Amino acid sequence: MKLLLKIMYDGTEYSGYQAQRGSRTVQSMLTECISECFGMRMNVTGCSRTDAGVHATGFCAAVEPYAELNRGDGWLKIPVGRVHRALFEYLPDDISVCGEAQVGDDFHPRYCAVSKSYIYKMYDSPYSDPFLKNRAWHLNRSLTDSGIELMNEAAGHIIGKHDFTSFMTTGSKITDAKRTVYSLDVMRHGGIVEFHISADGFLYNMVRIIAGTLVDCTQAVYKPDDIEKIIKARDRSAAGRTAPACGLYLNEVRYDREINWTIL
Amino acid sequence: MKLLLKIMYDGTEYSGYQAQRGSRTVQSMLTECISECFGMRMNVTGCSRTDAGVHATGFCAAVEPYAELNRGDGWLKIPVGRVHRALFEYLPDDISVCGEAQVGDDFHPRYCAVSKSYIYKMYDSPYSDPFLKNRAWHLNRSLTDSGIELMNEAAGHIIGKHDFTSFMTTGSKITDAKRTVYSLDVMRHGGIVEFHISADGFLYNMVRIIAGTLVDCTQAVYKPDDIEKIIKARDRSAAGRTAPACGLYLNEVRYDREINWTIL
Repeated sequence: MKLLLKIMYDGTEYSGYQAQRGSRTVQSMLTECISECFGMRMNVTGCSRTDAGVHATGFCAAVEPYAELNRGDGWLKIPVGRVHRALFEYLPDDISVCGEAQVGDDFHPRYCAVSKSYIYKMYDSPYSDPFLKNRAWHLNRSLTDSGIELMNEAAGHIIGKHDFTSFMTTGSKITDAKRTVYSLDVMRHGGIVEFHISADGFLYNMVRIIAGTLVDCTQAVYKPDDIEKIIKARDRSAAGRTAPACGLYLNEVRYDREINWTIL
Repeated sequence: MKLLLKIMYDGTEYSGYQAQRGSRTVQSMLTECISECFGMRMNVTGCSRTDAGVHATGFCAAVEPYAELNRGDGWLKIPVGRVHRALFEYLPDDISVCGEAQVGDDFHPRYCAVSKSYIYKMYDSPYSDPFLKNRAWHLNRSLTDSGIELMNEAAGHIIGKHDFTSFMTTGSKITDAKRTVYSLDVMRHGGIVEFHISADGFLYNMVRIIAGTLVDCTQAVYKPDDIEKIIKARDRSAAGRTAPACGLYLNEVRYDREINWTIL
């Protein structure tokens, strides 16, 4: 048995998810806090790497062995649905557990994923908003209604199965850059404009380069139809800028099996 | 002439608005940054005191003398509507200018105010939300639809002109505690529940004690009708708890004259 946790984190103060020697990462923080809570060394495996400053509202991490909690005076089984409360005292306030499930030993949070969804947030305002600091990309110029239409038109060319080499930061060791984007929608919620993107997988910086390129479309750097040419080029330099990390949120991971999420 | 600035700030890192020797306050930060930007000592007068940790989305502060900017090579008049850009480089990222206007020398941001509005934010969730840390009051118990109805019923007794001594932290030197609450509405926006309150003035901690008492109503500490008795008691101990500072936002100040707000 493994314990699967759904996790929210504000990535501002972390050098990304993946443990790296000498860096404060989400994985090392989780491992340390969960091990301390359970009174034994626990192994934490994540669904994905996220970059420094990237956030998550639905990150999935498997914890093993999910056996019992060492209370000093003996071992105590924490029922699924109560683990978030036990962990609350140990986790820093920029990480929290928002879902729990029990999964089989064969479950792997990365390899069993069939799709992932990200949200990219921007706000367009002549002044910066202290409450969106490190939480969204600030654009000085207004994204007009027709700008949002343009971005949705460009998004139409990204949806589907393509080789996304042009939307991958160079230096990645990936050999097969084909990915299937299931959906990509651009919408406004008040002062915030969001991209919602779902795919079977993402290349390094793919969402941020798509976001940057779509914003470039609103500033006449590209026309929406140019996206096809950019994809065909299979060359990073054909696409637009990389949007900043602070606007990116890993939102949801879907698995090849049903997960019985619970919070008591 | 004075310059009137509308200011947003995240109050988390400040000991309130008002300058105090030895403390990091919003007023001292504004005075320092504006003086540095304009190249001369500027005087900054606020519309209100706010407590440590309290936020603002529409704080008003008058700056004088609003004359010219000393660029070293001479004086330069910054037109109203461009001041926020000049200040942007000097202000920390938890304070920003979101409105500018020119006002007469007789204008005082505190004494010319005819009403103020605050928003108090809470969220009800079994787990804490890292993105609402220091931004809203976290309640573990769900505020049900009927709980929100109860709070609105209680709010009905608060609206109007009353002596609000019961809703004022003791030790204040105020002699006349009569205030008129123009509106008080409780509403849910997704996971966040907000109180919107508007009055001709507020006593020390008044919004936070009202918020705490209304939440107490949902937990059967009080019935909505008890509010009348609480007001009549004119005794702080008759009312409920003081809600935490982090959920409070000074949202809007209305004046006895029209202000021509602008951002270019």
